[in-house]
Amino acid sequence: MPNRKIPRATAKRLPVYYRYLNILLNANKKRVSSTELSEAVQVDSATIRRDFSYFGELGKRGYGYDVEKLLNFFKRVLNQDQLTSIALVGVGNIGRALMNYNFHQNTNLRISCAFDPKPELANTIQSGIPVYPVTEMQKQLREQQIDAVILTVPGDQAQKVTDELVETGVRGILNFTPVRLSVPKEVQVQNIDLTNELQTLIYFIESTQK
Amino acid sequence: MPNRKIPRATAKRLPVYYRYLNILLNANKKRVSSTELSEAVQVDSATIRRDFSYFGELGKRGYGYDVEKLLNFFKRVLNQDQLTSIALVGVGNIGRALMNYNFHQNTNLRISCAFDPKPELANTIQSGIPVYPVTEMQKQLREQQIDAVILTVPGDQAQKVTDELVETGVRGILNFTPVRLSVPKEVQVQNIDLTNELQTLIYFIESTQK
Repeated sequence: MPNRKIPRATAKRLPVYYRYLNILLNANKKRVSSTELSEAVQVDSATIRRDFSYFGELGKRGYGYDVEKLLNFFKRVLNQDQLTSIALVGVGNIGRALMNYNFHQNTNLRISCAFDPKPELANTIQSGIPVYPVTEMQKQLREQQIDAVILTVPGDQAQKVTDELVETGVRGILNFTPVRLSVPKEVQVQNIDLTNELQTLIYFIESTQK
Repeated sequence: MPNRKIPRATAKRLPVYYRYLNILLNANKKRVSSTELSEAVQVDSATIRRDFSYFGELGKRGYGYDVEKLLNFFKRVLNQDQLTSIALVGVGNIGRALMNYNFHQNTNLRISCAFDPKPELANTIQSGIPVYPVTEMQKQLREQQIDAVILTVPGDQAQKVTDELVETGVRGILNFTPVRLSVPKEVQVQNIDLTNELQTLIYFIESTQK
């Protein structure tokens, strides 16, 4: 496994490469050129070569890449050879949608438990996932040794819940709230701010119109 | 309005600045220093100054920024002084969650119509939003002059629907499918790939562990 720190932009493209390689393997393709790869994933080939260079020699000039070898490599890098359990906190609209979302199609990610303060949800199974009261959150996360949490609580509770998560030893948060969370530097936060994404899109539409 | 092309990373931060300035205005703050702004939005102040520099002189050295002036400026840049109607295509789990999502809290974005092929949804109102059959999509988009679409259809239909959207003159797509859409270069696509985000988070957790 590489110890070198790779850029966030590269890390974000790894799952895209991984997914496409899976498709190639299922189609019985043995090798792929960097041009083919580039067209399929819509990343220019110079960027692909630079991304891959962080992991050493992965292909041969004039031959391209061996699909199975490359796939196995990314599988290890992305931790796809072991099942990763994730918790979800906040069973509202977005939370519920994510509980129904097929994360584990082609990945080994699985939401294994959820937490919500609503009494009618406590100790029920929703979309195949057990929902616990929030009062049991710290205990469950420790027992199940969960490192990663999807945060879909209302914004005004985001920081408070985050503090509890950090206290429990959670090391990564996928944050769907609009709040910029304050966490110790060893905890990773990945923000998905839906309003922000939509506003950015509108901004780009408007600015190309002028 | 600026004509200069600004970087995508800057554009993505504009809604964050805008939201925080709104909070300051509501709290009756008249001005804000770049240090305060930097701490609140968790962007270093050099980046903030560089972001702002794309829009000319917005602050004064030693004085900081005038909250109301800056807010009004970003309001125009982000098009927040007019209501923007958005369509949603694909009323599944994620689509439904987004129809319930409060995009218009502090923004002027609104999902004004939705489209889905399921007969039981056709011509109903869901969460206050009219749902039309997909066969009426092109007609409705043209009549309502909608530029921006949220795409939450199953992956295997994403490109086909996109082609129809492009044909209708749609200029921006917020793509929740894992498919890399192929569009003409004047159409903006913003990808939100949930599996990808989660995999990237897990990757960062694992790589800091080593």
